[in-house]
Amino acid sequence: MMESMGNLRRTVMCGKLSSSNIDEEVTLMGWVQRERNLGGIHFVDLRDITGIVQIVFDEFAPAELIEKADLLRPEFVIAVKGKVRRRESVNPNIPTGEIEVLAKDLRILDTASTPPIYIKDEDNVSETMRLKYRYLDLRKPFMQNNLILRAKLAKVVRDFLHENNFIEIETPMLTKPTPEGARDYLVPSRVNPGKFYALPQSPQLMKQLLMVSGFDRYYQIVRCFRDEDLRANRQPEFTQIDMEMSFVDIDDVIEINELLLKRIFKEFKNIDIELPIKRMTYKESMERFGVDKPDLRFGFEIVDITEKVIDSNFKVFSDTIKNGGKVKGINVNGYSDKFTRKDIQNLEEFCKTYNAKGLAWIKVTEEGVTSPISKFFTSEELNEILMSFNAKTGDLILIVADKESIVYDSLGNLRNEVAKKLNIINENDYVLVWIVEFPLFEYSEEEKRYVAKHHPFTHPMDEDINLLETEPQKVRAKAYDIVINGDEIGGGSIRINNSELQKRMFRALGFTEEEAYDKFGFLIDAFKYGTPPHGGIAYGFDRLTMLLTNSENIRDVIAFPKTQSATCLLTNAPSTVSNEQLEEVHIKVDVKNE
Amino acid sequence: MMESMGNLRRTVMCGKLSSSNIDEEVTLMGWVQRERNLGGIHFVDLRDITGIVQIVFDEFAPAELIEKADLLRPEFVIAVKGKVRRRESVNPNIPTGEIEVLAKDLRILDTASTPPIYIKDEDNVSETMRLKYRYLDLRKPFMQNNLILRAKLAKVVRDFLHENNFIEIETPMLTKPTPEGARDYLVPSRVNPGKFYALPQSPQLMKQLLMVSGFDRYYQIVRCFRDEDLRANRQPEFTQIDMEMSFVDIDDVIEINELLLKRIFKEFKNIDIELPIKRMTYKESMERFGVDKPDLRFGFEIVDITEKVIDSNFKVFSDTIKNGGKVKGINVNGYSDKFTRKDIQNLEEFCKTYNAKGLAWIKVTEEGVTSPISKFFTSEELNEILMSFNAKTGDLILIVADKESIVYDSLGNLRNEVAKKLNIINENDYVLVWIVEFPLFEYSEEEKRYVAKHHPFTHPMDEDINLLETEPQKVRAKAYDIVINGDEIGGGSIRINNSELQKRMFRALGFTEEEAYDKFGFLIDAFKYGTPPHGGIAYGFDRLTMLLTNSENIRDVIAFPKTQSATCLLTNAPSTVSNEQLEEVHIKVDVKNE
Repeated sequence: MMESMGNLRRTVMCGKLSSSNIDEEVTLMGWVQRERNLGGIHFVDLRDITGIVQIVFDEFAPAELIEKADLLRPEFVIAVKGKVRRRESVNPNIPTGEIEVLAKDLRILDTASTPPIYIKDEDNVSETMRLKYRYLDLRKPFMQNNLILRAKLAKVVRDFLHENNFIEIETPMLTKPTPEGARDYLVPSRVNPGKFYALPQSPQLMKQLLMVSGFDRYYQIVRCFRDEDLRANRQPEFTQIDMEMSFVDIDDVIEINELLLKRIFKEFKNIDIELPIKRMTYKESMERFGVDKPDLRFGFEIVDITEKVIDSNFKVFSDTIKNGGKVKGINVNGYSDKFTRKDIQNLEEFCKTYNAKGLAWIKVTEEGVTSPISKFFTSEELNEILMSFNAKTGDLILIVADKESIVYDSLGNLRNEVAKKLNIINENDYVLVWIVEFPLFEYSEEEKRYVAKHHPFTHPMDEDINLLETEPQKVRAKAYDIVINGDEIGGGSIRINNSELQKRMFRALGFTEEEAYDKFGFLIDAFKYGTPPHGGIAYGFDRLTMLLTNSENIRDVIAFPKTQSATCLLTNAPSTVSNEQLEEVHIKVDVKNE
Repeated sequence: MMESMGNLRRTVMCGKLSSSNIDEEVTLMGWVQRERNLGGIHFVDLRDITGIVQIVFDEFAPAELIEKADLLRPEFVIAVKGKVRRRESVNPNIPTGEIEVLAKDLRILDTASTPPIYIKDEDNVSETMRLKYRYLDLRKPFMQNNLILRAKLAKVVRDFLHENNFIEIETPMLTKPTPEGARDYLVPSRVNPGKFYALPQSPQLMKQLLMVSGFDRYYQIVRCFRDEDLRANRQPEFTQIDMEMSFVDIDDVIEINELLLKRIFKEFKNIDIELPIKRMTYKESMERFGVDKPDLRFGFEIVDITEKVIDSNFKVFSDTIKNGGKVKGINVNGYSDKFTRKDIQNLEEFCKTYNAKGLAWIKVTEEGVTSPISKFFTSEELNEILMSFNAKTGDLILIVADKESIVYDSLGNLRNEVAKKLNIINENDYVLVWIVEFPLFEYSEEEKRYVAKHHPFTHPMDEDINLLETEPQKVRAKAYDIVINGDEIGGGSIRINNSELQKRMFRALGFTEEEAYDKFGFLIDAFKYGTPPHGGIAYGFDRLTMLLTNSENIRDVIAFPKTQSATCLLTNAPSTVSNEQLEEVHIKVDVKNE
C-alpha cells in the first residue's frame, strides 16, 4: 500500500494556507491527525510542523481515490494534491479554518501502527512513556514550538553577538580533568593507556586562554557536562551561552549583556526591559529575600526581629540568639485567611526540609492576635514585633529562629512557596535583577578551608584586595549573576589578570605554589606572556528557554533528554559494551557489590 | 609596575584607525608588537585583533611618561591614550600606515616574559612548540584570521539555513554505542554501574528520528567523535554541518545545498559558482580519475589499455590481465622533460605505497619513444598504446598493471601527486562536482559479507531495488558527495522510509531480524508510526574551513587541536586520574604489557 512521492513535490506547508490561496492547486505532505467519514465524504486533518489543514474527499471523487482515502488512519504519512476552496463551516480555532483542500490525488507514503501515546498537547501519559516514545512526543505542537523557540533564541543570541564583534570559537570536548568543582565525566584513552580525558564542565579555562591569545571577544553556545546527582531540572549534559571579553570591567560586561537581554525580551515577549537593570548586592538580597536569586515579583520580604526578642522570655528565640542565631520572619500580608492551621503545619514541614527546627506564626485578625507563641511575650514586646513587620489586620507572620544560614534558606524558600500557593504571581511578568558583590570565598566545612565561591580566577573587588590575607570572609568578588523571576539565568565575573594577585588568591585558598601549579599550571604559564584584563558570563541556555516557553520541566526544552538516573529511555543509553571494546581502551568494569 | 585600567575605556580598535581619525583623542588597548627608541623618541607598534597601529612617545612627553615607555617590552599589555596625527613617513604595508598616535597617557596592564615562539606568521618553530604554547601561536595574524573566517562561515551557514526553515536542534553527546561503523569513545556511567555512554560519531540516527517527529528540516553544527588512528588532517573530535529534510528526493537535497555552496563561495571567495553543479557518477569518476573525489582542476585522466595489450608479449601486462587484472595509465601530457629517471623512480615508489607492484613509463620525445618496456611491444602495439593516450611529443605516460582496485588507487593518487609536483594547480580555482550513484554495498574481506558503503538506512536507487537479493554488488545508492578540488567536503543520502524495504536491506547485509533489532531497535520501532521520505547531508566543517583559508593542516583551523597521538600538548590531556575517581565510575585501569 506504500507509495513513493514519485514526481510529486510539496508546494506549500499545511499551516501556511489561508483564504488568499483559494482556487490554487496545491500539493501538501504530512501526517493524518484525524480522519472521519461523514456519509461517504472523507475529512482528513493533515498535519505538518506549521499546522493543520482540512482535506476533503467528496462524493465526486473517483472511486479509486475514495478507496484509498478509506485506508487512512491516524499518523499515516500522505501526499495530497488538490484545490483550495472556502469551507462551508468555518473553524475559528485554527489559522487555516476558513479553507479546505478538495483532494484530487493521494499517495500513502507510509502507514502507521496505532501510536502508544496521543499526538496532542493535553496528553496525560507518564513521562516515562513520553521519553520512551520521544519521537512521537516530539510530534506534539507544544514540544515542537518549544524547540522552534529554542532554535530561534540561539539565532537571536548569535546575531546579537556577531553584530557586537564576538567571535564564535569551538573549544575541545575531550579535555583535561577539572581539578576543582563538580565531578567529571571521564573518557578512557585508547592511544594513551591508563589515561583519561574529561568532558568539559564549562569552557572556563579555554575561554580565558582565548583572551590571552588576543581574541578580544569570544562566544560559544556549548554543551557542558557535570556528573552530579540529578535534581529536578538538571541534566548531565546541558547547554551554555558562554562569552568572554577583554579590556573590560564589571560595567562593560553588564552593559552589553543588558542589550542582549533587552533584545531577547523584545523578540520573544514583546516586552521593553528598562535599562539599566536594577543591581542588588548579594548582602541585600540575602537580608531581604534569604536567597541570592530573589523573585522580585512579590513582597513578603524578610524582617530581622533578633534585637526585639533578644531579652524575651520565649526561650526558643532568646536561646537561639544566645547561641549566635537569628530570629527573622516574613509578613504574608493580607492573606491570613488563606491559611488554615493545617496549611501552616505544612509550611512548617516545608521549612524543616531546609533544616529549620520549627516555624512560629502570628495571625492578625479583627479580634486581635492569634498565635501559639503570643503568650510568651509581653504586650509591649508583641507590639514591637508587629510593628517590625508593619502588621495590619489580615496579615500572617511567619518566623524562623535558627542559625542565620538556616533562617535564610528556609525563609527564602518559604517566601517562594507561599507566593506559589497563593497563586499571586503573574506569569507574564518578568523582573530582572543583577546580584553583585558576591563573597569571593565560602568556607567549606568538608575541606576545612575557604574555597572559591565562583572559581579561583575571580577578581576581588579592588577595594577589598587588602583584606585577602586578613579577613578573607569579607572579600567581595567582581562577580555578577543575572536573576529573572527567582531563577539564576546567568552568571560571571571579572578574572584576575595579574600574576601577583593570582598568587595571593591561591595562598588564600590554601594552595602551595606547587599545588596551584599542579592544578592550573598551563593557565599560570599562559598568564606570564601578557594577559589583558578580562571577564565574561555564561547563561544556562536550557533555563533561559524554559523561562521564555513558560516550561516547568527542563525535559520539555530538550529534544532527547535523560531521566533523573541519567538514562535515555529511547535508546537505552548507557548500555553494556563488549570486553573487546573495554580492552581496547585499557579498562575493566569493577562493580563493587555494596 | 602593573596597573589597572581604572577609569580608562577603550574607544577604538587599533586596526580601525585611519587618516579620517586625525586629531581625534583615542584610547587604545593591546599588546606591544615591537618597541624601539630612536634618539629618545619611543615608537611602539600596538597590536589587537584588528591590526597594528604605531604609538609615539615624543621628546615633548613628560619625563614620567617616557620612563614608563622605557619599560615596555614585546607582548606587554598596555592602554594608551593619545591623539591621532599624520605620520611623517607613511608605511604602505599596513592599513593604519598613514597615521600614528601621539601618546599622552600610558598604563601597563600586564608585563610579559619573553615568549618562547615568535608572534608572527612566518615563524619556523616546530608544531610541537606551537601546540604547547597555543595561546601564543593563536596570537599570529594568520591563525586569528583562520578562526575569524571559521566563525563567519558558521554564521553564513546558519543564516542561510534559518532563511530556509531549517531548525537547529541539539542532539545528545552522551549517547548509545554505535553498532556499526568506526570505534566509539566510551564514557563510563556512575549512576548505572558497568554501563557506558558513547560519544556520537554523528547524529545520524537522532536526525532521522527528528524527521519521524515531523521537524521537517533540521540542522546542527555539531561536534562528532571517532576513536580512529589519526591520519594527517584527522582529529579525534571534529565538527560537522549536519542537516536532514523531509519529503525530499535526491534533487531536493542537492538543489538547496547548491544554493548554500553558492552563498559560501560568493561570500568568502567572491566567486559565482555556476548552477547546477556538475554531477558525475561514481563509476565515471573511478574510470576517469581512479578515485571517488576527483580533482577536476587538471587533466591526466586515466586511460584503459587492457584490450590493447591483452595479447602482447610483455608478460607483466598480459599475465596481470589473465589473472583478472587491468592495465591503465595516465598521460602527463607536455611535461615529460620535467621528470628525470630518478623522479620517475620516486613516482614508482609512491605507487607502491598503494600496493601497486610497479610503474611502467613511456616518454615521447622528438627522437621517438624512450621507455624500458617499449622493447616488449611490436611497433604496431606501441602505436596503439600511444594512440590510446593521444600521445604527442613531450608527453610522459605512466602505466600500472594490477588488480583494478589497486590500479585505481595508485593511479588516482599518482595523478594528484604529479599535478602537485608540477605545481600546475591554480590555488584560486574551485571546481565543484557531485559524485552520485555510489554502490549501496561494498564487500568486506574482513567480515566476509556485504557491508553498507554509507550506512544501513541508505535508500537504493529506485530502479535497482529489484537487484537487492540477486545482484547486491550492482545496486546503486541514493547517495551523493560534494567534492571540491579533490576533497570530499560533504556527503549524504536519501534514507529508507519503508519498513519492508528496510527489512530487505538488513537481509542483504546478512542480519537476522533479531540482529537488526538488537542493533537498531529503537529506529525500527520509530519507523512503525509513520515515517516521511527523508534525506540529508553532512559537511566536514573543519575541511570546508581549510578549503576556504587555503590551509594544509587541519590544526590551523581549530583553536585547541590534538596531536596525531590524540593528546593536547597545552593541557596534557589525557591524563591519569585518581583511583577514587575510577571507583566512582566502576572501572579499573587494565593496561596489558605487550
